[in-house]
Amino acid sequence: MAPPPSTVVSPVTAVLLRILTFVFLLVSLVILITNTVTLYLSIDSIDEITKLHFKDVYAYRYMVASIVTGIAYTLLQTVFNIFQVSMGKRVGGVGLYQFDCYGDKVMSYILATGASAGFGATIDLKSAFSLGAADKFFNKAIVASTLLLLGFLSTAISSVFSSLALPKRD
Amino acid sequence: MAPPPSTVVSPVTAVLLRILTFVFLLVSLVILITNTVTLYLSIDSIDEITKLHFKDVYAYRYMVASIVTGIAYTLLQTVFNIFQVSMGKRVGGVGLYQFDCYGDKVMSYILATGASAGFGATIDLKSAFSLGAADKFFNKAIVASTLLLLGFLSTAISSVFSSLALPKRD
Repeated sequence: MAPPPSTVVSPVTAVLLRILTFVFLLVSLVILITNTVTLYLSIDSIDEITKLHFKDVYAYRYMVASIVTGIAYTLLQTVFNIFQVSMGKRVGGVGLYQFDCYGDKVMSYILATGASAGFGATIDLKSAFSLGAADKFFNKAIVASTLLLLGFLSTAISSVFSSLALPKRD
Repeated sequence: MAPPPSTVVSPVTAVLLRILTFVFLLVSLVILITNTVTLYLSIDSIDEITKLHFKDVYAYRYMVASIVTGIAYTLLQTVFNIFQVSMGKRVGGVGLYQFDCYGDKVMSYILATGASAGFGATIDLKSAFSLGAADKFFNKAIVASTLLLLGFLSTAISSVFSSLALPKRD
């Protein structure tokens, strides 16, 4: 009879999932912080030039904060996982399995809220300000939010694996 | 020697946590769907009367959808937990523990994204439209988002308990 399937994935799969998360978050961050648009407005016959940047939208500031936290956490976990693959054992012992489990849980919530704050603000701001130039700015923000959502999904998958790994090491 | 502390909470605590979640979500829903404001706008010397409702903001529609899903799920879990308290055993057996674990996980993500979409849209729309009457509308939306956030937090706590309960029943 074949042995029962293990519920914990191999360390190589875990590393690949972390690298995938890292790539999603990094590309999302680059798109978000390089996203600018210059608007030429005419209010009460006075021409105004306004430059929009991610800092001008509170939701995008929160997105950047959540992505930076996510990148730092994912890098740390990638180092731990690469150590595990090369040394054949988990660094830090049982305590680190608990760190994985709760860390992944909290981090996936942070990334989920970052992505949905981005979508929430962008979709409604885009429909409120139907200007051609601003549209491009908001479309790029949607792309960044989608990549952050993908980063959340891969972290959520890591979270399921680390939850399943916890009782096996307790 | 005292027995090791159980990581699973009593069914009574579980019921109370579900009822708390239900109350947060219900009050949030009532505030959100009864929130309206009439705006008197003057655009190009033409007076316009616009009535704002939750349906006019996409993020609030998503909030309502996430709250309704959360209320349905919480009611179902409350019934299961009350049955467990009164009968002294869990309805449905081992399969239901997995339903609890993954259900709580997915539901907490839905509520977290609902709350943050609400905050994301409201804070930026509020700063973009600095009208006295609209301010009241957005302030009520912030209250609804905060209650939804509390509903998420209590579901996240339920999720930690149901994750810890799962390996004990496998």
